[in-house]
Amino acid sequence: QKQERQVGDTTYYPSLIPQAKQGLLRDVSVIANMNFALRNEFQDGEYMKTRFRNEQFRLEIRGKVHEKVYFRFRDRYTRAQTSESVDNLSRSVDLAYLRFDISEKWSASAGKMCADWGAWEFDWNPIDIYEYSDIVEYADNFLTGVGATYTPSHRNQWTFQVLDSRTKTFTELYGTQPNFTESKAPLAFVVNWRGSLLDGKIKTIWSYSLFNEASNANMNYIALGNEFTFNKFRFIYDFKWSDEQLDRTGIVSQTVPDDIYPYALAKTRYIGHWINIRYMITPKLHLTFVGMLDIAQWRNSFNDPENTAGEEHIRNAWGYIPAVEYYPWDNLNLKFFANWVGRVYKYSDYAKTRFGVSDYNTGRFTVGFITPLGIL
Amino acid sequence: QKQERQVGDTTYYPSLIPQAKQGLLRDVSVIANMNFALRNEFQDGEYMKTRFRNEQFRLEIRGKVHEKVYFRFRDRYTRAQTSESVDNLSRSVDLAYLRFDISEKWSASAGKMCADWGAWEFDWNPIDIYEYSDIVEYADNFLTGVGATYTPSHRNQWTFQVLDSRTKTFTELYGTQPNFTESKAPLAFVVNWRGSLLDGKIKTIWSYSLFNEASNANMNYIALGNEFTFNKFRFIYDFKWSDEQLDRTGIVSQTVPDDIYPYALAKTRYIGHWINIRYMITPKLHLTFVGMLDIAQWRNSFNDPENTAGEEHIRNAWGYIPAVEYYPWDNLNLKFFANWVGRVYKYSDYAKTRFGVSDYNTGRFTVGFITPLGIL
Amino acid sequence: QKQERQVGDTTYYPSLIPQAKQGLLRDVSVIANMNFALRNEFQDGEYMKTRFRNEQFRLEIRGKVHEKVYFRFRDRYTRAQTSESVDNLSRSVDLAYLRFDISEKWSASAGKMCADWGAWEFDWNPIDIYEYSDIVEYADNFLTGVGATYTPSHRNQWTFQVLDSRTKTFTELYGTQPNFTESKAPLAFVVNWRGSLLDGKIKTIWSYSLFNEASNANMNYIALGNEFTFNKFRFIYDFKWSDEQLDRTGIVSQTVPDDIYPYALAKTRYIGHWINIRYMITPKLHLTFVGMLDIAQWRNSFNDPENTAGEEHIRNAWGYIPAVEYYPWDNLNLKFFANWVGRVYKYSDYAKTRFGVSDYNTGRFTVGFITPLGIL
Repeated sequence: QKQERQVGDTTYYPSLIPQAKQGLLRDVSVIANMNFALRNEFQDGEYMKTRFRNEQFRLEIRGKVHEKVYFRFRDRYTRAQTSESVDNLSRSVDLAYLRFDISEKWSASAGKMCADWGAWEFDWNPIDIYEYSDIVEYADNFLTGVGATYTPSHRNQWTFQVLDSRTKTFTELYGTQPNFTESKAPLAFVVNWRGSLLDGKIKTIWSYSLFNEASNANMNYIALGNEFTFNKFRFIYDFKWSDEQLDRTGIVSQTVPDDIYPYALAKTRYIGHWINIRYMITPKLHLTFVGMLDIAQWRNSFNDPENTAGEEHIRNAWGYIPAVEYYPWDNLNLKFFANWVGRVYKYSDYAKTRFGVSDYNTGRFTVGFITPLGIL
Repeated sequence: QKQERQVGDTTYYPSLIPQAKQGLLRDVSVIANMNFALRNEFQDGEYMKTRFRNEQFRLEIRGKVHEKVYFRFRDRYTRAQTSESVDNLSRSVDLAYLRFDISEKWSASAGKMCADWGAWEFDWNPIDIYEYSDIVEYADNFLTGVGATYTPSHRNQWTFQVLDSRTKTFTELYGTQPNFTESKAPLAFVVNWRGSLLDGKIKTIWSYSLFNEASNANMNYIALGNEFTFNKFRFIYDFKWSDEQLDRTGIVSQTVPDDIYPYALAKTRYIGHWINIRYMITPKLHLTFVGMLDIAQWRNSFNDPENTAGEEHIRNAWGYIPAVEYYPWDNLNLKFFANWVGRVYKYSDYAKTRFGVSDYNTGRFTVGFITPLGIL
Repeated sequence: QKQERQVGDTTYYPSLIPQAKQGLLRDVSVIANMNFALRNEFQDGEYMKTRFRNEQFRLEIRGKVHEKVYFRFRDRYTRAQTSESVDNLSRSVDLAYLRFDISEKWSASAGKMCADWGAWEFDWNPIDIYEYSDIVEYADNFLTGVGATYTPSHRNQWTFQVLDSRTKTFTELYGTQPNFTESKAPLAFVVNWRGSLLDGKIKTIWSYSLFNEASNANMNYIALGNEFTFNKFRFIYDFKWSDEQLDRTGIVSQTVPDDIYPYALAKTRYIGHWINIRYMITPKLHLTFVGMLDIAQWRNSFNDPENTAGEEHIRNAWGYIPAVEYYPWDNLNLKFFANWVGRVYKYSDYAKTRFGVSDYNTGRFTVGFITPLGIL
């Protein structure tokens, strides 16, 4: 064979097994994560439009590439390919990391990965979410860094992560900021506990995260996910609490018009409740219901000279999603679904008067299919 | 193995066959669709420039992933990756759909697919087209929706599709429109008949499409493709007729300067004739010729106060492409080619006088290779 | 199976082996080229910031797809996907070409490929470079065209290439140019010799390139790479010399402020020295050192009326990178590393006085991993 340029060996590497044969040791899958839907959209009760939409299309490659090394890569085709200022990788890339399996109980990861700031909604494959709750929807979920996982038994798993707290620079994310300056080490620290109690009848994903957003400005985030399974019935309750010294989630800052405060605000708090109920009528036919409430507060609104009552509350965002799901094949992981996605946004009197916003609601009736399709 | 985040099962799915083993059931190909050329370009008889160009590079994954499910994905690396407003998927993605094979005679498809508004030129793999005729060149070919195919025998196949009529919003596509308003369900309806007569000596692809472009504005499109094969000789004639209440193809609107009418015009018609001749000197050496004529008309040009003669005709675009093709290997689908791509654009006197356009012609002498290369 | 649109055979192709079976003949690898690092960055001795960064992530598919045809494709996810004006392919795509193995001694290539303007630094896989020297960093390495390789013995290899000299148009690259006009055939010609002497103890990569940048403006580039191996010790010295009638590398043009000369300058010269030392303490533990010096000159600076001394020298850019590398596994091509990347930029008195620039230095302490990981 001819000598090729940049064929790429890590310089001077003494590999015992030629690269072409290493494939025999691998157990790798290629997956097309798809969520396709026909949407009929409504606002404030009025029919707005009908369209087909590729809700999700994420190609994924994952698996063991060596007895001690696991590789995972996932890229979406529903987002522009870019080169991010901080972590250099495209925003379309969700995952690009290696996991090193050091021992039975310990593993370590490095690369762009899923921040493990759990609870169940966040932990699912995105294709299975009909609509995210506010806190997760507005979060940066895929961050670059390192992690370690300790699995003392099949009943407990602990994960620790240190990550870049964002993929863009401070200025790109927050614009010109009068009250905060960029920090030199804008990192995020995540700790996560996954538990399995009563033979898996109760499962938990609890996490605490500290995100450094600016010098002297952190985000503290707690998520407590709890899953209860009783035969054909499953119930999940996620509690989320995000205290932000600089408004990372941004819902409050977006509510305030730019002619009042044209920058990201300080001291916001978001609280989320999320329930998910699933009833398996038969293995092939399921009924599910998602209910959610996201509460947005502006904790130093008392600084606003026109806020005479000291009102901190900005809005409640409700959501309810009844759905029916049908799995036609025993040997293929694919479901057809029909659902109603209802959202109701209710603002406080303070927000209405001061910021000129109004309550509104949206809805959509959707039918489609969902599959994490193994293709290679 | 360690528990991973978002490893993605469609929630609660009772699969009998573990995902890692499902690969054994698959018959999937990965293909690099390539068209590479050295171009020598001319305009109005004058030599303009020489360059190498990757005319086409589209990676494709396709095949049966289950006894009843066929997957197809194709993405080009010659177009920016985006997130389109209507169907959410990148414009670079041609295809991302599933086909469900319901029975011997019926199948259904869903996802981003090729609008089946046939005739032969459109039906070929794009790498095999040296230059598209106007109507196909300016069309949005890859749309999101659903389809059904009925194949009563190997001599007949019927396809029905309902698709989004575009991937961008009305405003993004047509700009500010004084005369039309967006419709709430901008859908396209396509019906297609593929016939095979006289043991395949005559083959047809005939289609009719109705595209809703705006409230009270549709596009009606008819394409009649006919292929005749006699031993080493093959002749194809495609007839195309597109009547557009709002100028989707856009050639007429582009001809009219913005200082006269700065928006997409109403009531245009495009008519296309396309012939393709192939003579196999030997199995490895072929001669081919493509001839084409595209006619552009502005049917309410009578509203133009300066159009005293009532002239509707705008331009004729001629094309002629003689080529020689050589297939060096029996067992690899790859051809080298040399061709001349000649185009002649002739405007009506009305268009010349009123819109300040002139006749012109372009040409290029090209050598290169074409292959839908199976790589995995 | 149902008949599919655009399933893509190169029209009328008489393949003996069905496409689905051709895979049995292939020997193809899929590779994730990764360089991941934790960076601690300094400027002029002051600590600036800490971040994780995906330095490189390039997916690659390569291998024999036929007894006579080798395919190679590589795409990076750290650069926006585009459609380049000249060669049509995305700038994120490094490689997309075929190599035809004509005989034992001759092969030919066509597509987007690595310009073979050698020396060793450039010839390595990019993941193995901690920081490129100036001339390589600012060059357009991946160009579209054709090449031929002659390998008379395992001791000598000759490569000849004809390529587009750029992927963007003249205007996109150089802006409005008062002194130069675009040429009609902006091509690059490359010749390269790879030698192996004394049983491989001495290896060379020597190349000469002529790039046409504009009418009457060429770039002449010579690179002489020399590698010496003595048991556990390896020494490399690359010499680079680039004479540019229009400033393609651009470092001089970037140094001159736009209010003095707001366009790419004429007649620059860049000279580079690069050494690389590697000492294998054990097969798993290596020490390496890179040293570099890039010299930038403006050869018609005498035209600058304020340049009374006739000074041509603009700046020296020094670099030094000591590193330790550890390969934990015999059977996986992956290394962990720690290094210091130091750069010192020293400007001439002329440049300082006339263009207002100052000397500065940067440094970073980095730990991470590097792997050309075989994943399929």
